[in-house]
Amino acid sequence: MLVSALLTSLAINSGLCVLFFTLYSILRKQPSNYEVYIPRLLAEGESDKSGSFNLERLIPSPYWVKRAWQLTEDDLLSSSGLDAVVFMRLINFSLRVFMFAGVIGIFVLLPVNCSGNQLEYFDFTDLSNNSLDVFTISNVNNGSSKLWIHFAAVYLVTIFVCCLLYYEFRYISQRRLDYFQSSKPQPHQFTILVRSIPVPSGSSVGEKVDSFFREYHPSTYLSHIVVRRTNKIKKLLNDAKKLYTRLLHLQSVPNQQKYTRSCCFGLFGRKVNLVEQYEKKLEDAEENVRLEQSEASLGGDEVRSAFVSFKSRYGAAIAHHLQQSTNPTNWVTEQAPEPRDVYWPFFSSSFIRRWLSKLVVIFLCIVLTIVFLIPVVLVQGLTNLNQLEAWLPFLKNVLTITFVSQVITGYLPSLILLLFLKIVPPAMEFFSSIQGYVSLSDIQKSACSKVLWFTIWNIFFATVFSGSVLSKVYLFLDPKNIPSKLGLSVPAQSSFFIAYVVTSGWTSTSSELFRIIPLIWSLLKRPFTDSKDDEFEVPAMNYHNHMPRVLFFVLLGITYFFLAPLILPFLLVYLCLGFIIFRNQFINVYAPRFETAGKFWPIVHNSMIFSLVLMHAIAVGIFSIKNVNLASTLIFPLPVFTLLFNEYCRKRFLPNFVAYPAESLIRKDRQDENDPTMPEFLDKLVTVYQDPALMPINYSGSNDRLRSPLLSSAHQA
Amino acid sequence: MLVSALLTSLAINSGLCVLFFTLYSILRKQPSNYEVYIPRLLAEGESDKSGSFNLERLIPSPYWVKRAWQLTEDDLLSSSGLDAVVFMRLINFSLRVFMFAGVIGIFVLLPVNCSGNQLEYFDFTDLSNNSLDVFTISNVNNGSSKLWIHFAAVYLVTIFVCCLLYYEFRYISQRRLDYFQSSKPQPHQFTILVRSIPVPSGSSVGEKVDSFFREYHPSTYLSHIVVRRTNKIKKLLNDAKKLYTRLLHLQSVPNQQKYTRSCCFGLFGRKVNLVEQYEKKLEDAEENVRLEQSEASLGGDEVRSAFVSFKSRYGAAIAHHLQQSTNPTNWVTEQAPEPRDVYWPFFSSSFIRRWLSKLVVIFLCIVLTIVFLIPVVLVQGLTNLNQLEAWLPFLKNVLTITFVSQVITGYLPSLILLLFLKIVPPAMEFFSSIQGYVSLSDIQKSACSKVLWFTIWNIFFATVFSGSVLSKVYLFLDPKNIPSKLGLSVPAQSSFFIAYVVTSGWTSTSSELFRIIPLIWSLLKRPFTDSKDDEFEVPAMNYHNHMPRVLFFVLLGITYFFLAPLILPFLLVYLCLGFIIFRNQFINVYAPRFETAGKFWPIVHNSMIFSLVLMHAIAVGIFSIKNVNLASTLIFPLPVFTLLFNEYCRKRFLPNFVAYPAESLIRKDRQDENDPTMPEFLDKLVTVYQDPALMPINYSGSNDRLRSPLLSSAHQA
Repeated sequence: MLVSALLTSLAINSGLCVLFFTLYSILRKQPSNYEVYIPRLLAEGESDKSGSFNLERLIPSPYWVKRAWQLTEDDLLSSSGLDAVVFMRLINFSLRVFMFAGVIGIFVLLPVNCSGNQLEYFDFTDLSNNSLDVFTISNVNNGSSKLWIHFAAVYLVTIFVCCLLYYEFRYISQRRLDYFQSSKPQPHQFTILVRSIPVPSGSSVGEKVDSFFREYHPSTYLSHIVVRRTNKIKKLLNDAKKLYTRLLHLQSVPNQQKYTRSCCFGLFGRKVNLVEQYEKKLEDAEENVRLEQSEASLGGDEVRSAFVSFKSRYGAAIAHHLQQSTNPTNWVTEQAPEPRDVYWPFFSSSFIRRWLSKLVVIFLCIVLTIVFLIPVVLVQGLTNLNQLEAWLPFLKNVLTITFVSQVITGYLPSLILLLFLKIVPPAMEFFSSIQGYVSLSDIQKSACSKVLWFTIWNIFFATVFSGSVLSKVYLFLDPKNIPSKLGLSVPAQSSFFIAYVVTSGWTSTSSELFRIIPLIWSLLKRPFTDSKDDEFEVPAMNYHNHMPRVLFFVLLGITYFFLAPLILPFLLVYLCLGFIIFRNQFINVYAPRFETAGKFWPIVHNSMIFSLVLMHAIAVGIFSIKNVNLASTLIFPLPVFTLLFNEYCRKRFLPNFVAYPAESLIRKDRQDENDPTMPEFLDKLVTVYQDPALMPINYSGSNDRLRSPLLSSAHQA
Repeated sequence: MLVSALLTSLAINSGLCVLFFTLYSILRKQPSNYEVYIPRLLAEGESDKSGSFNLERLIPSPYWVKRAWQLTEDDLLSSSGLDAVVFMRLINFSLRVFMFAGVIGIFVLLPVNCSGNQLEYFDFTDLSNNSLDVFTISNVNNGSSKLWIHFAAVYLVTIFVCCLLYYEFRYISQRRLDYFQSSKPQPHQFTILVRSIPVPSGSSVGEKVDSFFREYHPSTYLSHIVVRRTNKIKKLLNDAKKLYTRLLHLQSVPNQQKYTRSCCFGLFGRKVNLVEQYEKKLEDAEENVRLEQSEASLGGDEVRSAFVSFKSRYGAAIAHHLQQSTNPTNWVTEQAPEPRDVYWPFFSSSFIRRWLSKLVVIFLCIVLTIVFLIPVVLVQGLTNLNQLEAWLPFLKNVLTITFVSQVITGYLPSLILLLFLKIVPPAMEFFSSIQGYVSLSDIQKSACSKVLWFTIWNIFFATVFSGSVLSKVYLFLDPKNIPSKLGLSVPAQSSFFIAYVVTSGWTSTSSELFRIIPLIWSLLKRPFTDSKDDEFEVPAMNYHNHMPRVLFFVLLGITYFFLAPLILPFLLVYLCLGFIIFRNQFINVYAPRFETAGKFWPIVHNSMIFSLVLMHAIAVGIFSIKNVNLASTLIFPLPVFTLLFNEYCRKRFLPNFVAYPAESLIRKDRQDENDPTMPEFLDKLVTVYQDPALMPINYSGSNDRLRSPLLSSAHQA
């Protein structure tokens, strides 16, 4: 790839970004788009949709950038929770790493690379005609002592990243503890989820739970709620809800439309009042729901799981940490998620079934990863027009048109790939959901790791080692050749990944700001819905969507910083965009759906360590290819110490991300002893983990219909 | 190797075994050997040394075999603890496995192997002239459908072993819980060991521990004992003990020897009463010890660790299982070992130091494993006389003598190897002791695994893949070729391993019965010691010595049963010998030094699973070499399911081997509530974890000198 080609791509994508920013600055000020761009403020009542038209609304203003810039971490914490803070710190962290690496890369390594002539001479007269390869390590002469500069850079950056990782882990660990100390009493702190409850025949789950905890935790046990299968009720509830919305709609339309004939497509028969008809239907439906609910609460379809609440956090922690039963696969305990975070469907209880579904999910992930290579190969076929013509001869005439062939070879492949990649996060989320997690946060956390490894495998390794699936698998069956193969293939792909950062990174971030899909969706449905009655949902941040992408770009940056330092400025621009845009989205768009209190950070940490070790492997390979065997050998201690460092961090910080220590729990419990609201809180605790599908339903008689418990519960289901 | 050669070896070793048995049957009846052969009965006072001579003492009697045979598991449990039961069940388990595999191997596989003619025809006329290779799978014709019989045998035996493993794990897990339920209150059930206690300057460890546990465990905390460095006191104590024994000796000798001259080698000067002199020295030494002890208890040389005792088992478990501090590397808790089991030296406390020493030990183990290959290579050189002559030309004349050359090539190599192997268990025990374990049982458990892996690597793999260290390491860097290399090399070594079972296995077991080294030692020191005053120690079973050996033979059996079924009868004889001999030793010789309540079983389980998977890898290799690729492919599910089975067992049974469940703990605590001896027990608990070096010392004034606390404590140190 020539510099000019990169510049073209750069120009196009910068143009796109500027366009997105400008459009956003205008569109966000239109009240009709408030639902798309500031749903959070709207829901909090800080903006209202009506507003007189004025000219200012059509002039793009950068005011929002300033607001996003000025947002402090404490503001972010109070408005969006610790998870948002962790996400922003990831971007902050990456910015710092690449600022450091960037100074070394641009001012030291880049001139060294250009001064070599292994591939070709640097052409000072016509900059844009240089190949991008001139800027990479491949251009340094083999055996040159200048490669020791790269060697030193690898050491420096590794040490810098490790130090930063240590301080960051410590900081977030401390933040997590502070967050816990300053938090109000929350139901999930007092509750555990018990699964695989052994129930003797003739006894109910509830009785068994009650007798067990009354016997073994008499002083701290408070209450329990048995989980029930409510799929059927959920279906009935949805039906009722549909009837209800249709009824609301009917009540708002003009009177004459409320009547229809009773038979033959409404043409003949008796005139019928539709409103009355629907009201009757709704009453019937509600009656059905109530019947099913009372049946369920009488003991039908019990799952052998229960939420068990305790009088103190420490009591819950004791029951959670100690193996309860002599059979470790019975009475399996885990911390309960927040009530809003519970994922009610797929509530599998048996130990064996959860274990098997985990195995199935691992298998499915592997299958998806392999199957995904098929579109990648097809896309690679598209860039080769001759082959396409051979496959589909009737396209011959069309393909001769220059524009068509340019679109097909230039844009279509990456578009198809991007579309396929869009499917991955939801697919992984689905896999995680059938794996037996009980909370949305756990599902997202697990999906986040899955998407990350999928991306690394299918973008990084599939690009670097083009070839069949089997040849890639064989590479990992032959571990001693990995570094040399990496050293050979990775630098060759540097120009592709530089372009990838610009096209995929920049565009995806600015389209995140512009929210294209929600915007289109809102434009499409606007003519069909009544804007006043329409309930809208504030979206939540999908961490498993955004986090792996950032982490993947960081991986690219860390692995390529000494091979092709030219990637760093583009990465810095990407991260700056992300810094502003995600802060803006946290302020305006996303409302937190759960609070894991920073449990996403260990994923970040692991990914960074993996990036570093991968970078070392590549360094070993490239130095031995470049005939600097001593440097190649001297790199070896680096991955060893990085992994030891990781091991230390896992021992030092990770336990605090799994559970809170006794010290904090007891201190917090003692604080609450003097709190006059505690008895009230404990009273509420008894019912707070009730399945929303079992909440009492009351549409037909409700005055404040939109705020009935049914609707809010239907959202969650 | 020819059948005749095997028969010769068999004859020699059978003769040795019979000789050992006969000698043992006679020698054990001589009172002078009681200390060697029945020290346990002697210590328990069931036998006494004096006894009139009669002829019966010279006739070998097999009465002891009957007694060992009739010993029930419950008797063994009550006399030698659950660890002995686990060891005997390992032998029992192996017997059952090889009885099953033996029936298949001898009656099905062996005829099939002999009927082939890939290597040579089976010679019915002169059995002893057949090569042993005729009996191996290598003799089956390539591509023959008879290999499917071997395939079926592999499946059958794997399923049989897995079923047996499951039932055994369940049985021992249940035994462990029963043992706990039926045990008396024991100090270690109520105590935890806390390490890495953070001590602010100006405060002592004791104060900090007291305030911490009074604050966070006010209702259950009982007391604590801070660990101190007592190396200096231990040295002084040893000196005092030496003086004391010399004094005792002097008091028993005739009067005139009690005097010596005061100068010039006792020739001139004033006559001095030696007894008085020693008594004075002893008093001084005791005074010194007391001074040091009082200094130590005033706070000198505190280690930042403490044994913390609780009023209930459940209280101790809570403090153990919950992370105490916000910094997970402080207040690190673990279950306390039994007081007699504590390993006082090397009491490292800091988290980082223990972690680093663990890394150092791993490194040392790797070095030992590699260095050990040097004697192996040298020994291999001995079997090649020409090379030896080339190295040491002056030996030329000696080596021409047939007898010398036979001894050098035939017996010396295995003798040297055996001697080197004798060093391994103590070396590994030493490594484990500096790794930061606080109990002898943990040290032995860790050494057991280390010795096992060392044996597998240095005997199995080093024999199978002769060649340089690097070539072996490269094998594991090239995982996809492992099965084919195994399939090629393992069957070739079958005759060696058959001979190894006979020579090393049979002889080691019968010499264990005969206790050669203790016997020689006792014979040597007898003329120099006074038999009456001489205190003797009842030896304890060294599990890290015997368990890996049995496990290694089981590994040989499992991997070779379908390659060379001829190994099975010899293994069965070995196991039968072990069955009788170890039961006899548990009755007569070994007294338990600790009680882990079956914690050795997981090592056995892991070793079995490894043997199975190794066997599958060999099967894959051999079937593809034999051109039955379908069978080779169809083996693949077997290791996968074996590993899944292992994973299930780990989840189902392993937690019970790590800690007792809340259910058992609470039930046991409630039982004790009505026990009138509990207050007394708790009073004693306060001091039971006192370092023996800090116990009060009183030689000079003691009447019952042999039973003074110093002596028993000096044993432990």
